Amino acid sequence: MKQIYIIGVGLIGGSMALDIKSKYENVTVFGIDNNQKHIEEAIALKVIDAEAKLEDLQNADLVVLAIPVDVALLELPKVLHHIADTTLVFDVGSTKSPICQAVEQHPRRRNFLAAHPIAGTEFSGPSAAIPGLFNAKANIICEVEKTAFKLQEKALQLFSDLGMRIRYMNPVAHDKHIAYVSHLSHISAFMLGKTVIDKERNERDIFDMAGSGFESTVRLAKSSPNMWTPIFKQNKDNVIETLEEYISNLQQFKNYMEADDFEGIFNEMKNTNHIKEILKGIK
Amino acid sequence: MKQIYIIGVGLIGGSMALDIKSKYENVTVFGIDNNQKHIEEAIALKVIDAEAKLEDLQNADLVVLAIPVDVALLELPKVLHHIADTTLVFDVGSTKSPICQAVEQHPRRRNFLAAHPIAGTEFSGPSAAIPGLFNAKANIICEVEKTAFKLQEKALQLFSDLGMRIRYMNPVAHDKHIAYVSHLSHISAFMLGKTVIDKERNERDIFDMAGSGFESTVRLAKSSPNMWTPIFKQNKDNVIETLEEYISNLQQFKNYMEADDFEGIFNEMKNTNHIKEILKGIK
Repeated sequence: MKQIYIIGVGLIGGSMALDIKSKYENVTVFGIDNNQKHIEEAIALKVIDAEAKLEDLQNADLVVLAIPVDVALLELPKVLHHIADTTLVFDVGSTKSPICQAVEQHPRRRNFLAAHPIAGTEFSGPSAAIPGLFNAKANIICEVEKTAFKLQEKALQLFSDLGMRIRYMNPVAHDKHIAYVSHLSHISAFMLGKTVIDKERNERDIFDMAGSGFESTVRLAKSSPNMWTPIFKQNKDNVIETLEEYISNLQQFKNYMEADDFEGIFNEMKNTNHIKEILKGIK
Repeated sequence: MKQIYIIGVGLIGGSMALDIKSKYENVTVFGIDNNQKHIEEAIALKVIDAEAKLEDLQNADLVVLAIPVDVALLELPKVLHHIADTTLVFDVGSTKSPICQAVEQHPRRRNFLAAHPIAGTEFSGPSAAIPGLFNAKANIICEVEKTAFKLQEKALQLFSDLGMRIRYMNPVAHDKHIAYVSHLSHISAFMLGKTVIDKERNERDIFDMAGSGFESTVRLAKSSPNMWTPIFKQNKDNVIETLEEYISNLQQFKNYMEADDFEGIFNEMKNTNHIKEILKGIK
């Protein structure tokens, strides 16, 4: 691979660029981004080598689509229109059904691979890019059979070089499960932050009492609303389902408290404690 | 200080013992614990020097009460009964009104200082003890005026030597605010863990999709139910109030989703984003 194009030079696109530059020789990484400041910042930080336009994509060996999931639906068909027959395009979005549907009938569907690297932080923009972000992380690939053999191979080699663990899944199952292990966590953190901030308006001292436990639990509330709003929109039904179950569990906990059933409270926590063993497997 | 007695040689008591041993010369740290295995483990790990009994407390310069908050209510009056006139006793519990009330009329009330160091991890037992745990952490002190001057001074010197930032608060305000910044975070994490585990019973693959964001948000669900059940019981009214507000915020988020009001969703997240600045202050 000689010419790589990163569309969206933020946390994920930028980290991908850094790893590709460190793993491959004689590679040039171009950035495409609506935000001119991000392009300049990414060049200054040596995250990308130069700016490019969609019209340049005919020269691309690889195109990484790393933009908010709503814009990705509009951009992917255009990207596929501009590439060469041998170009691999993959996305990194947190929802997979809408993007797979968006290009289902596209004549260049076989140039596209739908991917979701389970990696990130609560920060965004080119300055949030970090080397090694994808090492030992899971990468969910959807509808792999719809991608051309040679491009499947190219993608898997890249993901392997970046240290990722590959998991294959259909887009419907991906969107359903990711709602539980990722989307709900974000809402939980945002609403916890809101609940405490609402209180803090009147009580300035409250945050001085907060410790590392609070910080850990609300960390995701620092995440970008620009990125997350379209994810929740695209995965609306699944997210609502997880929210209903979460609210119901919280309500049940409150019911135990109100009924002074502290054996019930103990059991709720005891039964969830084995999350210790489950989390051991998460890198 | 020559003779220190730690009642409850777990995460907090054990970490306190380690710091005291490293900061002071010629000090002997004794451990008192109902759990004989914890005593043996604490001695083996050099967290404490030897075992002791309540009857030995007449020799104590300092007694640290670091046991679950329900047992603390029963043990503190006994401890005060056994100590000398010059002994300082402080607790480290996460609720402050009940323990202050429990000894309000005790003839040795002036030997006691009610404290809550905002420090800890999700682990427990002597093996969870770590040096430096209290460095740069807040320590909330309640009803300081009810402690003898000389013992206030002794306590403040120790907390200062351990690197803590002191905050004074009345027990009622402490319990109200700590419900928001600590107790609610734990319930949020436990119920998030439960919601996802309930799903996972049928879907084995789900946790392989979980990333560091999920791990951070559910981390507190590893906490000890033995420690947390009595905290929720003692702080019942405040915790129920925080739960009501949290559930109401989650419900509002769900309402926006159901109404396809994604501008509302965006604003909810945007308005909470300044938690970034707030969290910068947390050590």
